[in-house]
Formats: sequence, C-alpha cells, structure tokens
Amino acid sequence: MELSKTKSFSERLFQSAKPIWEKNHLHPFVQGIGDGTLPENIFAFYMKQDYVYLIEYAKLFALGAAKAPTLETMERFAHILHETLHFEMELHRTYAAEFGISRRELELTEPTPVNLAYSGYMLNAAYGGTLAELVACLLPCAWDYREIGLLLNAQNGENLSLNRYNRWIQTYASDEFISMSEWLIGLMDELTDGMPEASLAKLEKHFLTTSRFEFLFWESVWRQDSWPV
Amino acid sequence: MELSKTKSFSERLFQSAKPIWEKNHLHPFVQGIGDGTLPENIFAFYMKQDYVYLIEYAKLFALGAAKAPTLETMERFAHILHETLHFEMELHRTYAAEFGISRRELELTEPTPVNLAYSGYMLNAAYGGTLAELVACLLPCAWDYREIGLLLNAQNGENLSLNRYNRWIQTYASDEFISMSEWLIGLMDELTDGMPEASLAKLEKHFLTTSRFEFLFWESVWRQDSWPV
Amino acid sequence: MELSKTKSFSERLFQSAKPIWEKNHLHPFVQGIGDGTLPENIFAFYMKQDYVYLIEYAKLFALGAAKAPTLETMERFAHILHETLHFEMELHRTYAAEFGISRRELELTEPTPVNLAYSGYMLNAAYGGTLAELVACLLPCAWDYREIGLLLNAQNGENLSLNRYNRWIQTYASDEFISMSEWLIGLMDELTDGMPEASLAKLEKHFLTTSRFEFLFWESVWRQDSWPV
Amino acid sequence: MELSKTKSFSERLFQSAKPIWEKNHLHPFVQGIGDGTLPENIFAFYMKQDYVYLIEYAKLFALGAAKAPTLETMERFAHILHETLHFEMELHRTYAAEFGISRRELELTEPTPVNLAYSGYMLNAAYGGTLAELVACLLPCAWDYREIGLLLNAQNGENLSLNRYNRWIQTYASDEFISMSEWLIGLMDELTDGMPEASLAKLEKHFLTTSRFEFLFWESVWRQDSWPV
Repeated sequence: MELSKTKSFSERLFQSAKPIWEKNHLHPFVQGIGDGTLPENIFAFYMKQDYVYLIEYAKLFALGAAKAPTLETMERFAHILHETLHFEMELHRTYAAEFGISRRELELTEPTPVNLAYSGYMLNAAYGGTLAELVACLLPCAWDYREIGLLLNAQNGENLSLNRYNRWIQTYASDEFISMSEWLIGLMDELTDGMPEASLAKLEKHFLTTSRFEFLFWESVWRQDSWPV
Repeated sequence: MELSKTKSFSERLFQSAKPIWEKNHLHPFVQGIGDGTLPENIFAFYMKQDYVYLIEYAKLFALGAAKAPTLETMERFAHILHETLHFEMELHRTYAAEFGISRRELELTEPTPVNLAYSGYMLNAAYGGTLAELVACLLPCAWDYREIGLLLNAQNGENLSLNRYNRWIQTYASDEFISMSEWLIGLMDELTDGMPEASLAKLEKHFLTTSRFEFLFWESVWRQDSWPV
Repeated sequence: MELSKTKSFSERLFQSAKPIWEKNHLHPFVQGIGDGTLPENIFAFYMKQDYVYLIEYAKLFALGAAKAPTLETMERFAHILHETLHFEMELHRTYAAEFGISRRELELTEPTPVNLAYSGYMLNAAYGGTLAELVACLLPCAWDYREIGLLLNAQNGENLSLNRYNRWIQTYASDEFISMSEWLIGLMDELTDGMPEASLAKLEKHFLTTSRFEFLFWESVWRQDSWPV
Repeated sequence: MELSKTKSFSERLFQSAKPIWEKNHLHPFVQGIGDGTLPENIFAFYMKQDYVYLIEYAKLFALGAAKAPTLETMERFAHILHETLHFEMELHRTYAAEFGISRRELELTEPTPVNLAYSGYMLNAAYGGTLAELVACLLPCAWDYREIGLLLNAQNGENLSLNRYNRWIQTYASDEFISMSEWLIGLMDELTDGMPEASLAKLEKHFLTTSRFEFLFWESVWRQDSWPV
C-alpha cells in the first residue's frame, strides 16, 4: 500500500507551467544559444535588453529585503541582490566588452515594450502585494533559466568548448545560480505553508503570467522588437 | 516687439506626443467607433478589456490621493476615483448589459498582455515614483480620450444619433470628462513648476511611453489579442 | 448539549484589546468630552491635531482602494475615503470655525511626536504589508471611536443638549459612522478567513499597537505635547 | 574681494539641525558611553532596541536600491544594506554575546513606542516619497552617529582602552562608517541639485524631524521606556 504524498506548492507551480516552459526551451533563440548558431547581432540585442531587465529584476530582491518577515530572509535577499548586480550582470558586461559595447551603453538601452511589460508587471505586484506574490512573480525567471542552463549543458555537452555562448550556459548551470534558485523555491514553499486555496490560486496566476512573459521576452529579442509608433 | 512666451510643460508634452496621438486618432478601431462601423464583437472585446483596465487605472487615482501634497489635491483625486468607478465604468456596464454581459463577467475578464503591460507600467511608476510621475503616466489616457471624444463628435456630427457607439463618444466629449482632464493637465503644470530639466525629461518619457501603450491597446483590442502560450 | 461556537477574529481582537480600550474610555480627555467639562483650549488643541491625523488616516482608505482584491471592496474604500474627507473632517472644520480657526490653519497644524508616530506606523504597514494588515491598523480608531460615541451618549443622555461637545459625540454615535465601522469589522473577518495562526498573530499585534497609540494620542492632546528639542 | 560661495544643501541641513544635535551629544546616555560610566543594564537595553531599529533602518537602504535612478546608486545602496546587516549589526551581536544575549533574543526585542515611531516615520516617507525624502530621513542617524563617534573618540582619547564601550565608539569613528556617511551626504547634495525651494523645505523638515527622533531615542533607552498600557 502506498502512502499518498502531498505535492509541495512549488511542484504544483512546476507542473502547471510545464507546457509554457517547454515552449521556452524549444524557442529558436534558446536553441541557438545551445548549439552556438545564434547570430551575434541577435545575441547583442538580447544582452542589452537583458541588462536593463536585470536592473529592474534586481529591484525585486531589494523589495524582497524590505518586505522580509525575518532577518535571515532579509539577509538572503540582500545577498541575492548583491549577486545579481555583481555576478549575473558581470556576465553581460564581459560579453558586451567583447562585442565593443560599453557598460554605459548597456545601461542606456531602450527597453522593448515586452521588456517594460514584464518588469512593470512584477514590480507592481511587488510594491502592492505580499512577499509571496513578489516571489511567485520572480521565480519563473530564476527557475527556468536554471532549467535552460542545465538542459543546454546536457544537450550540447561535447561541443560546448567551441560554443561562443558557453559562458552564458555555464552561468545558469552553475552551483551558485542553482543554489539561489533552490533557495527561492524553498522560500515559496515556506511562505505558502497553510495558505488558503484562494491565495495559492492568485500566486499560481502570477507564476503562469511571468512564465508567459518569459516566452514573450524570447520572442521579442528574437524579432528585435521596437515600438510600432 | 513680441514678448517670448514660455511654453507650459503640458504644451511640451502635447507637442511631443502629437505624432503618436495622430496614429491613435486614425486607428481603425477609433474610426470605427466614430462612424459606427466597428463590429459589435470587437466592441464587446474592447469593453471587457477596458473594464478591467479601468479597475487598475482607478488605482492610480487612489495612489494619487495617498501621495497628494495638499488636502485639496487629495480631495480631488478622491473625487476622480469616485467618478471613474461610478461614471466612466457605468458606461461600460450599461453597454455590457445591452450585449448580455453581466457586471461579474466584466470584472472577471482576462486582461491581454498589452493590457497588463500598460497598467503594470503605470502602477509600478505610481508606487515607486513621485506624484508627478504618476500624473505623467495616467495623463495620456485621460487627455487623448478627451481628444478622441471631441474629434469623433466633430467628424460625425449629423450622423451620431444613429451611431451605436454615440453614448461612448458623448461620455468622453462630456463637460465632466473634459473638466477632469483639464484639472489633471493643470496639476501636471503645477507639479512641474521650477523642476529641473532632468526630472522633466523623465516625465516626458513616461508620457510618451503611455501614449504608445494607448496605441498598443487599440491594436490589441482590434486584433482581439490573447497569450501565444 | 451545547455546540461550541467559533469566535470570529474580530471578537478575538476585541477581547484582546479590551483592557487598553477601557483605559481609553476612562481617560480624562474622553470623559471631559462626555460631561462637557473639557477645557476649550484643550479641545482646540485636539481638534487641530486630529485634523492632520485624519489627513494621514484617510490615506489608509486610499491605499485600501489601491490594494482591494475586488471591485466592490475598492468602491467601498473609495466611499469611506470620501466620507472621511467630507463628513468626519467637516465636523472639525465646523468646530474650528466656531473657535475662530480657519481651514488653512487646521491643515498647517504641526503634528505632535505621538501623532506622527501613530500615522507613520499605520502608513508604513499599509505600504509594505497586506490589505489585512492595513485594516488591522486602522480598525481600533474606527471601532473605538464608535464605542466612545455610544458610551458617552449613554452615560450623559439627558445632559447632552447642553454639552458643548455633543455634536462630536453624535458624529461617532451616528448610523453612518457605525455602519462604516461595521463594514471594516466584517472585512477584517472576511480577509482573515482560513488564515494561518502566524498571520493572525501578526494582525493582532498591529491591532494592539494601534489601540495603544489611541491611548497615547489621548495623552498627548491632554498634555498638549510638543517636541522637547 | 571675496567671492560669495553658495552653501551646499547638506551644509544647510547641518546648520539647521545643530541645536538638536548638540542636545544629542550632551545626552547622559551618549556621554555615559563616552566615559564608560553608562550602566550595563541600560546599554543592554539600548543594544536590543537598536538591533530591531537597525532591521527597520536597513529596509531604507533596500528601498533606496529599489528607487535608485542609476545602477551605480543602486549598487551603492545594495552595498550599504549588506554592510549594515553584516558590520554594524555584528557589533551588537558581539556585545550581546558578551552580555549573554543570543542573536534570536536580540531579533525578538519588543520595540519601544519611540522606536516604532522613528522607524515608522522613515519607512512611510520612503515608501510614499522620493529617494531624496528617503535620504533626508535616514541621514541624521548615519551622520550624527559619525559625529558622536568622532566626538567621543576625541573627548576621551587616552582612557578609551579601558572603556567598556570603546568598540562601539570605534565603529562609528571608523573609516568605513565615515565613508558611508560621506557618500550619503554627497548623494543628498546630488539629488537636490537645482531643486525648487518648496521641495528643499520639505526635505529639511524630514531631516529635522528624524534628528528630533534621534534625541527621543536616546531618551527612551535612558529611561528604558515601555508602553503605558
């Protein structure tokens, strides 16, 4: 006889977002990173967009520190804020330098409509909502980038040393990134412990919406979007 | 000899956004309202989207009341909040009832990505920024709807009594709506009095961005957008 | 056999704050209002302090509208915001006019340290926390003023027509004020339905803290506090 | 002939708050730290109060990071957030350990009314206001602690090695603390460049109010305050 095991909330989120994440993983931009065939001008476009995205994304960690219920959680958000500004964004600065793009130029990138939409959605939820809502919004980016890092690493193992974008892949498959992502997943489960279904459903909605914005983001950089007017 | 006259900040905003607003005025959705040829299913789609948009938009007035520097400004925002909930949104409820759509159904509409993008952008700016930023964000909607109301009224004068959408046009061409919009324009000028250029430029950026979101909104309802994943 | 009946969360709050509220009810300021013996200069001091307090307090209703989970709740907060600005504050303006104090003078009152402490505490919780936290903070003022209105009315029935402060008492014993207070109590119960104990304990803490600030406020106006430096 | 030199805004703030800060410097608590005569139970009370104060104070740096206009300012706030959590608060943890007080006990300290008043005032201004308002609020604590560190160091030079509280003094007289405080002063001047007088006056008000809260804080720990009800 088997004991039924209660699914954690993060498992529920994962199952729920799976069909969207699969589309993310198969997106030509993502696959082009994986096999190194992504045109450099498209990667440069992405890098600049992602740089200004990360500035906004890092604000979620700052707001997470401000809304943390315990000192320990506050310290952890402060740490991730620091890591994002100095570790993940350094990856972009290094690539940018290779492409002849200065730090200043990166910072002044005009975000695409999708880029603004995605960060605005999360920051609005973060300001107006609970810490659990903030985490539900930022989790797909932290979690699915890890999935993508691990997937591309596994798919393209032997050829990665020749891949122009290998450093990108290794960043998101790194122990540091995985451990940050694990902590956020654990926090999501902790914050939702004993929470009524209506609140959980609201969080799931945030998680699915930002998972969809991940897809739109890949689309927007692949198409090199700009404003139509 | 002529005295040079300093342009007010709102005039600067108007001139700056003019090319975008002209595209809004010529948009087939807007023109279809004006001459009554807009298909009803598209209008129904718009009405539902705009209803949930207005719920978010009204939050800007609530936040304006919370951030108002004087009691008088606070009272005015409280008044506009009330008007939006009971006057502008009533227009949609009335049309919806005619289309057999209940108030509850309106409220449960799933916003399109553009709808979320637009309201998220404004609410993020409203929470994180100054009252002047909040006003710069919400002004294009209040101001350009007035322009559209007056324009469609003038363009289609004699035929309006037969136009299915005449009540919509008259709402935005009404004295109440015009006076609300005038007050917001005056507040923008008041709040920016003596403000350094760097701050003005930031406000102008918000104004242009939400003017562009107005265009994207017309597009999104015209196309009856949904999430691609 | 008796069925055990679950105490509502608002009943728990009421029981928990009772010893504090009893001290409020017996405070010489409150009793002085009740029997009309409160010196007019102390009432004038209170009136000015309470006026600037109410400006901040009303911001909680504005933020409540911004954070409301449903349109109905939003409309109700917008309504209370309007009532506070036009009904409760009008009481002070009328008294002030009798005392030769202008509306402008009222608005420019320097808040005492306790006044700032109380409003700062609530607004910080309102910005950083959930709607339930916001309501837990603002509830003691809305609820205990009603208790005081009803108590003073009952205690001093026959003599109230001669009482200088009768209009004050009747405001807080009025159907309008009672119904507003009832709605907020009901909302507190609704928002806490199914909430885990850790969250309830946090709300109870807010409720007790602002109940204590009510007491400090009575003290501060009774002593006509100012900054020591 | 001498050229008139414009006073920086921070100089204006310093001059304006001088009479208050002088009272802080002469306060028996501060002087008791300086000459080592402060009773240990009072220092223990302070240390616990200041610990929970610093948790709230650090949230201002987190919100500063979220509201920073440039990436550089954001990085700096993230750095100060980290320093406060790991450097300034470590001082308290070390003293507390010597006094047999655990980290957990520190974190669970019930704040006094003044402590809540002070942090609530700043956080409300930080959430609802501009970055300049946030900085004006937090500056007196960062700046006057530096003044106190330097003053006590100079006053008690030769005897400091025997002073129980010397490590406290050296923390606030340290290069790290001074450089953090300098950066915040510079930021205040940068953010107010070209700002109209009405906005400056509002910032000065914040600065004076939190300078006064500094005094009330010394008073509250000296008296070992608690709630009267």
